[in-house]
Amino acid sequence: MSESVAPDAPSVVAKLGAEAVGTFFLVFSVIGTALFAAGFGKGQGGLNVGFLGVAFALGLSVLIGAYAFGPISGGHFNPAVTLGLAAGGRFAWKDVAGYLIAQIVGGVVAAAVLAGILAGGKDGAFAEAQKGGFASTGWGELSPGGYGLGAFFLAEVVTTAIFVTVILAVTGKRGAGNFAPIAIGLTLTVVALVAIPVTNGSFNPARSIATAVFGGGTALGQLWGSIVAPIVGGLIAGFIHKPLFEGVSK
Amino acid sequence: MSESVAPDAPSVVAKLGAEAVGTFFLVFSVIGTALFAAGFGKGQGGLNVGFLGVAFALGLSVLIGAYAFGPISGGHFNPAVTLGLAAGGRFAWKDVAGYLIAQIVGGVVAAAVLAGILAGGKDGAFAEAQKGGFASTGWGELSPGGYGLGAFFLAEVVTTAIFVTVILAVTGKRGAGNFAPIAIGLTLTVVALVAIPVTNGSFNPARSIATAVFGGGTALGQLWGSIVAPIVGGLIAGFIHKPLFEGVSK
Amino acid sequence: MSESVAPDAPSVVAKLGAEAVGTFFLVFSVIGTALFAAGFGKGQGGLNVGFLGVAFALGLSVLIGAYAFGPISGGHFNPAVTLGLAAGGRFAWKDVAGYLIAQIVGGVVAAAVLAGILAGGKDGAFAEAQKGGFASTGWGELSPGGYGLGAFFLAEVVTTAIFVTVILAVTGKRGAGNFAPIAIGLTLTVVALVAIPVTNGSFNPARSIATAVFGGGTALGQLWGSIVAPIVGGLIAGFIHKPLFEGVSK
Amino acid sequence: MSESVAPDAPSVVAKLGAEAVGTFFLVFSVIGTALFAAGFGKGQGGLNVGFLGVAFALGLSVLIGAYAFGPISGGHFNPAVTLGLAAGGRFAWKDVAGYLIAQIVGGVVAAAVLAGILAGGKDGAFAEAQKGGFASTGWGELSPGGYGLGAFFLAEVVTTAIFVTVILAVTGKRGAGNFAPIAIGLTLTVVALVAIPVTNGSFNPARSIATAVFGGGTALGQLWGSIVAPIVGGLIAGFIHKPLFEGVSK
Repeated sequence: MSESVAPDAPSVVAKLGAEAVGTFFLVFSVIGTALFAAGFGKGQGGLNVGFLGVAFALGLSVLIGAYAFGPISGGHFNPAVTLGLAAGGRFAWKDVAGYLIAQIVGGVVAAAVLAGILAGGKDGAFAEAQKGGFASTGWGELSPGGYGLGAFFLAEVVTTAIFVTVILAVTGKRGAGNFAPIAIGLTLTVVALVAIPVTNGSFNPARSIATAVFGGGTALGQLWGSIVAPIVGGLIAGFIHKPLFEGVSK
Repeated sequence: MSESVAPDAPSVVAKLGAEAVGTFFLVFSVIGTALFAAGFGKGQGGLNVGFLGVAFALGLSVLIGAYAFGPISGGHFNPAVTLGLAAGGRFAWKDVAGYLIAQIVGGVVAAAVLAGILAGGKDGAFAEAQKGGFASTGWGELSPGGYGLGAFFLAEVVTTAIFVTVILAVTGKRGAGNFAPIAIGLTLTVVALVAIPVTNGSFNPARSIATAVFGGGTALGQLWGSIVAPIVGGLIAGFIHKPLFEGVSK
Repeated sequence: MSESVAPDAPSVVAKLGAEAVGTFFLVFSVIGTALFAAGFGKGQGGLNVGFLGVAFALGLSVLIGAYAFGPISGGHFNPAVTLGLAAGGRFAWKDVAGYLIAQIVGGVVAAAVLAGILAGGKDGAFAEAQKGGFASTGWGELSPGGYGLGAFFLAEVVTTAIFVTVILAVTGKRGAGNFAPIAIGLTLTVVALVAIPVTNGSFNPARSIATAVFGGGTALGQLWGSIVAPIVGGLIAGFIHKPLFEGVSK
Repeated sequence: MSESVAPDAPSVVAKLGAEAVGTFFLVFSVIGTALFAAGFGKGQGGLNVGFLGVAFALGLSVLIGAYAFGPISGGHFNPAVTLGLAAGGRFAWKDVAGYLIAQIVGGVVAAAVLAGILAGGKDGAFAEAQKGGFASTGWGELSPGGYGLGAFFLAEVVTTAIFVTVILAVTGKRGAGNFAPIAIGLTLTVVALVAIPVTNGSFNPARSIATAVFGGGTALGQLWGSIVAPIVGGLIAGFIHKPLFEGVSK
């Protein structure tokens, strides 16, 4: 984690490319599963994968991304993670902006590819997805279970704080070594199982920006919530981790 | 496992914090999934995650907690585990009380957060969850499949004994090293698949205390069972592990 | 794998205990899930776990057992595995009988515990499970999809041969080390996904003996098939593994 | 990766046998699950495993195959992978043809075994599977969700490019070591969750050839797409990996 550059340290292009491609994969996986497979056939015939499939798509894509791209960029794929790690002293504040841009670009491109696939579907497939909010996150009509703004913030702040706490723990001085990506990725599966019915499951502003661009109206109007809440959760985790968990006995 | 304190041993605050946060995550995950996602839309539309989602939420949250907090506190998150490990000679009896309190506090706070989210749901969402027992464990009307007291005790004692046996094995002298959290967490997924229809799946007094507080009436009246049965299972496993499995050939 | 006894080699009691307890856990998990959770509420309400839950219960219980008990006994939990390993030169023929007895005892005790839980269920729960064959394996009326004897043998021989091939590969000289239990356990999840609709998924005579004891009539009458077919598959894999996969370039 | 032959390097027979058996297992798992279990009972009774079961069968079979056979042959099991690795400089072009033949043979034999099982099913089971395309991949009537040719190519090229990118990353100089099979296998689970509704999920010409042989008419007529699209995706990933991700800071 030294800031001095080792002879074989990844280039800036490789780092930003890894963040963009990793976030592309995350958004492609979770939103593709949500749009195409979750409610396939409206649940008739039993082929649909439900929220469980979406939760695994999210968690496993990050597990995979952390193994594939973590050694290059650290494997954030999420502005709330980048900011939480900076708050926890694990990432340089000066590199934050570049990472956030790469993540947002990767996410939006993924949503555009999914939109392209929908455009090649049955008549009206794209319009129907858009009318349903394009799997955007939010409250009220965007919450699968109809939860309100307060429930949205409570769920998103708590789940993202848990997520960043796990990241800081398993990559820290008492960390999980090469098992860290398993713990990190599966944390998203678990919090998605809880939170999708409430918020549709953001934990990640880049993921919510990507879908709001295609979800339009309400999705864009509520986007601020999916940016603020996960970042607040990530920052809380970042700031409290060291004082709470890294104290040593005297 | 020496009781002498190493210079970088975690502080007591870190240990109890790790137990509280880990148990918070466990209860938040399994009860949140049970309340919000398991029967979403009463199974219409195919988005619901069922008992399978609940079993994965439970098992994966403990797998993750064991990686994240295990190196700090040992990663019990469960009074039956703490007592079973003490019975097996792996944990100091004098430290038991503090761990149990931290676990119960973490679990109750998690249930309170979930209650807060429900309070921000549709009209009547909280009352409906409470009427259904708030995912409490028990027999008769609290058993999803309507099983009785005898079946409850048989299922909870056996499953918790299996769970603590696995913990003692994979963390022992012929243990699984850094793979231990995978085996430990997934054991809960497996026993939950079997036991949720019977008992609603405790294996953990802290989890059952947390839900009984919000489930009221019957849940509180039957709480003694969800405290006694898992602890009996954990103690049995703790006392028989060494004589049965650690014998060496002569 | 030396036959000379190391000073800290597990005792015979520990080895047979590990096989019995491991097979107990396997049968308890897969049959408990099949009986209580797979078709819960006949699929109404969406809480049922289906064949997917059964497949994960089977695979994960063996993954866990391999980590917990593998270092003691080798972690067979299955006569077809014990015989296949002997055929492949990895296990002493003289120790086979003891292992088989321990596995069968462990499996039958597990089925008895599940019968005890059912006896504490709603009126008629035990009788209904028994009438349905107690999750026994077979063809015709015991095949969930109504497949015949030829399909039964083809499916059981091929899947068990795959399973023992994976075991021999990941525990061999080019093996997977501490990752072996993951590959071994999940192989059962995969072959169960394919074979449960055809045979109800044995791959293991101990599992089928355990359920036939409680399934009665047809289950007992067809039991020979669930003993012969997996053993044939295991032996084929055992005998062909070395000549096929362990050749080296000249 | 040296081309000079080490004294204990696997023989050519072992390598081609590993590719054939590994591809057999892949096709047996994913197509067996698709044909027998995915829509079991048309979703009535809740025992069916849906696309989620198919996605896990695919991903886990490759995870397992990579642990079991990867040390022998590299564990490709897929022409698009073999060609992508050659394009990325990780596999000798001169060995490509043998691998492709072994993969196609393994896949076709697996489909033949599944056809044999279906022939032992209820009257008409085989004809019904054949009429449904034998789980072939394609567009229009072969696409579960009715997507067209453009959507087919977009989905298959992008998902296979992701898959080969992950392989190149986790087996490269900043790779995941013994964790690589976990990341590789689960990538297929994730992309299958997204792509099965669109293309029925190929990512692998050998898998699509194997089913088209039994699916007849339309399946054979569209087979070119399932050969071209994954290979294009694999080659793109192979050629761009090094320039994009392996640059080092100056």
